[in-house]
Amino acid sequence: MNKSAHRIDALQYNNWSPKIFEQLQQGGVHAVHVTIAYHENLRETILNIEQWNLWFERYPQLIMQGRTGDDVRLAKQLGKTAVFFGFQNPSPIEDDIGLVEIVHTLGARFMQLTYNNQSLLASGCYEANDSGVTRMGKQVIKEMNRVGLVVDMSHSGERSTLEAVDLSSRPIAITHANPHAWAPALRNKSDAVIKAVAGRGGMFGFSLYPHHLKDKTECTLESFCHMVARTADMVGVAHIGMGTDLCQDQPDTVVEWMRKGRYTKETDYGEGSPSNPGFPNMPAWFQDNRDFDNVAAGLATVGFSPQEVDALMGENWLTFFDNNFGQIGAQPIPTS
Amino acid sequence: MNKSAHRIDALQYNNWSPKIFEQLQQGGVHAVHVTIAYHENLRETILNIEQWNLWFERYPQLIMQGRTGDDVRLAKQLGKTAVFFGFQNPSPIEDDIGLVEIVHTLGARFMQLTYNNQSLLASGCYEANDSGVTRMGKQVIKEMNRVGLVVDMSHSGERSTLEAVDLSSRPIAITHANPHAWAPALRNKSDAVIKAVAGRGGMFGFSLYPHHLKDKTECTLESFCHMVARTADMVGVAHIGMGTDLCQDQPDTVVEWMRKGRYTKETDYGEGSPSNPGFPNMPAWFQDNRDFDNVAAGLATVGFSPQEVDALMGENWLTFFDNNFGQIGAQPIPTS
Repeated sequence: MNKSAHRIDALQYNNWSPKIFEQLQQGGVHAVHVTIAYHENLRETILNIEQWNLWFERYPQLIMQGRTGDDVRLAKQLGKTAVFFGFQNPSPIEDDIGLVEIVHTLGARFMQLTYNNQSLLASGCYEANDSGVTRMGKQVIKEMNRVGLVVDMSHSGERSTLEAVDLSSRPIAITHANPHAWAPALRNKSDAVIKAVAGRGGMFGFSLYPHHLKDKTECTLESFCHMVARTADMVGVAHIGMGTDLCQDQPDTVVEWMRKGRYTKETDYGEGSPSNPGFPNMPAWFQDNRDFDNVAAGLATVGFSPQEVDALMGENWLTFFDNNFGQIGAQPIPTS
Repeated sequence: MNKSAHRIDALQYNNWSPKIFEQLQQGGVHAVHVTIAYHENLRETILNIEQWNLWFERYPQLIMQGRTGDDVRLAKQLGKTAVFFGFQNPSPIEDDIGLVEIVHTLGARFMQLTYNNQSLLASGCYEANDSGVTRMGKQVIKEMNRVGLVVDMSHSGERSTLEAVDLSSRPIAITHANPHAWAPALRNKSDAVIKAVAGRGGMFGFSLYPHHLKDKTECTLESFCHMVARTADMVGVAHIGMGTDLCQDQPDTVVEWMRKGRYTKETDYGEGSPSNPGFPNMPAWFQDNRDFDNVAAGLATVGFSPQEVDALMGENWLTFFDNNFGQIGAQPIPTS
C-alpha cells in the first residue's frame, strides 16, 4: 500500500466496541461507512447517533466523525478512522422530505431508497413486483442531490435501481454487492445495473458477506479477485471499490431483526435458510478489519498495478466522497 | 453606527415572513437569536427547523443560518442576517442528555433551563417554590458547557438562576429581561442576578417587550436608556446588550399557547390579565427591526460613547458568540 493512499470500506455493520475500533486502526482503515439505521424512525436513529457521539467522545484517539472527503485525509494524518453514517432504508426520514436535510446535517451521507421490501420511495429486491421509483421517491432523490446525501441502491430492485440512476442528477452508489453473473444471489447486481451506475460516475462496492460470494464462506480470495478484475474489464477501475458488509460480533438475533424489522410476525430467512438462519461465517482470508492487506495482495496477484490497488482499496471512494457529500450551491466564503 | 460594528438582537419570536426578513436587512441587523421551541418535543422542534431550512433555501439573499461568531461577520459582508436557533424551554431534549449534542449539531445555541414552570432541569420564575437546579439539570449544564450550548435563564427563578451561574463552567446568559428595580415584573431580574451573570462573563439582554418595561407600552425611550445606563454603572458596559423579545405579527392565540403549552386546561394569563390577555402593543419608538437606530440614538443621548453604543447594539454579543458556541476540546486541524 502506497503510504499516501487512503483505505476506505463503504459498508460495515458491526457490534461496535473499542476492540473493533482498534482493529480498524490496525488494519489501516482511514474511513468506514457504517449503517446506523435499518428500520429505525427518526427518533430511534437519533438514539443511534447519540451512541456514536458517546463513542467519539470516549475513544478520540481511535475514531472521529466523518462528514467530507477531507475528514478522511485528516483521520489518516491523525492515525484514526473517520466514521461516516448511512441508512439501509429510508425509515429515518419517515414520510417527511424536510428530514433529508436534517439527517444530512446530523452526518448521514448514504441512504438506501429501499431495504429488500417496498418503501415509500422505491421497490426492494425481494418484492415480486418492482414498480420503480415512486412519486415521493422522485422528490426525495432531488432533495438528496441538493444536500449531498448519496442514493444507495444496494438492496433495491433492478427497475428501481435503473430508474434511480436516470433520475439522479448526481452519481449514485451500490455500496455493497457483487455481480450476479459471478454469484447469482438475489442481492447481487446485473451487468446492466453495474454498467449504468458506473457509466454515470457512480461507485460499486464489492461485498465480502458470504451470501454474496461464489461458494459463500468457502469462496477463495483468487475467485473474488478474478471477479473484481472482470468487473474492471467491464466498467473500468475508477468506479469500483470495497464495501465489505462486515457484521462482526453480532448475535444472530440481529440478522433476524435486520430481515424482519417490524413488517412481519413470521420468520423471514432472507438470504439464509431454515438450516442456516444466522450470520454466515466470513471467509478465512477476511475475518475482520486487520485483513485488508490480504485483499490488496490478492488484487495485485490478479494483475492490478500498485496504483490500481490503491484506487480499489479506497482512493476511488475518496474521490466520490469529495464530489458527492457537499451541498450544491452552498454559499462560498467571500474574499475581502 | 460605526460601519465596522455588528448589530445583534439576542431574542425574537416573530411570525416570520419575507417582510420581516427584509425589515431585518433594512434595520441593519446582522444576527438574530430566534426562538424555535417553547413546548415542542424533539420531533416537533425538528419540524420547526425544517421550516427554517425552507426559508434559508427560499430567501438566501436575506437570511442564512448562523452557527458561530464568524457567521455574523459573514452575514454582514454578504448584506444578510444570520439566524441563530434557541429554545425557551428544555422540552426539545426530552429526558435525554444525548440530545444536547444533537440539537447543537442542528444549530441550537441557547437553551433556557425553564420556561416559567418547573422543568426536569430547574424551577421557573412563576413557581411558588424554587428548588434550584435538579440532578438532571446539573448533568445537562455540564454537557451544554462541553458542546457550546449556552444556558439561558431568562424565565427561571432566582435561586435556580444563581445556582446555574455557579454550576456552569462557561458564562451564562439572560437573553431577554430587564432589572426588577426599574420595572417590578415577575420576569425581570434582581440586581443580585444581573451582577452574578455579568460577574462570570455572562450577558444580559435588555427586553423591549412591554410587560418588562416601566409603564409598559407607554415606556419612553429616555426611561429605557437611563435604565441601561444605570445597569452599565452597576456591572460595566461589556456584559449587556439587546434582546428585544420582539413578537411581531403574531396572533393572540400564540401568546395563549406560549403561556399554556400543554401543562394546563385552564387559562393562564401569564404577564397579561383578563382585561389584557393578548400581545401588548410595542412602544412607539420600537415597532419592528427598522427601529434599532432609535435605540442607538437614545443610548448616545444618555451619554454612551459611539464605541459603547456599538458594544451595546451587538459587539458585546458577538464577543460572547465567539467564546461560547464552540465545543471545548474540539480536535484542532493538525499542521503538517
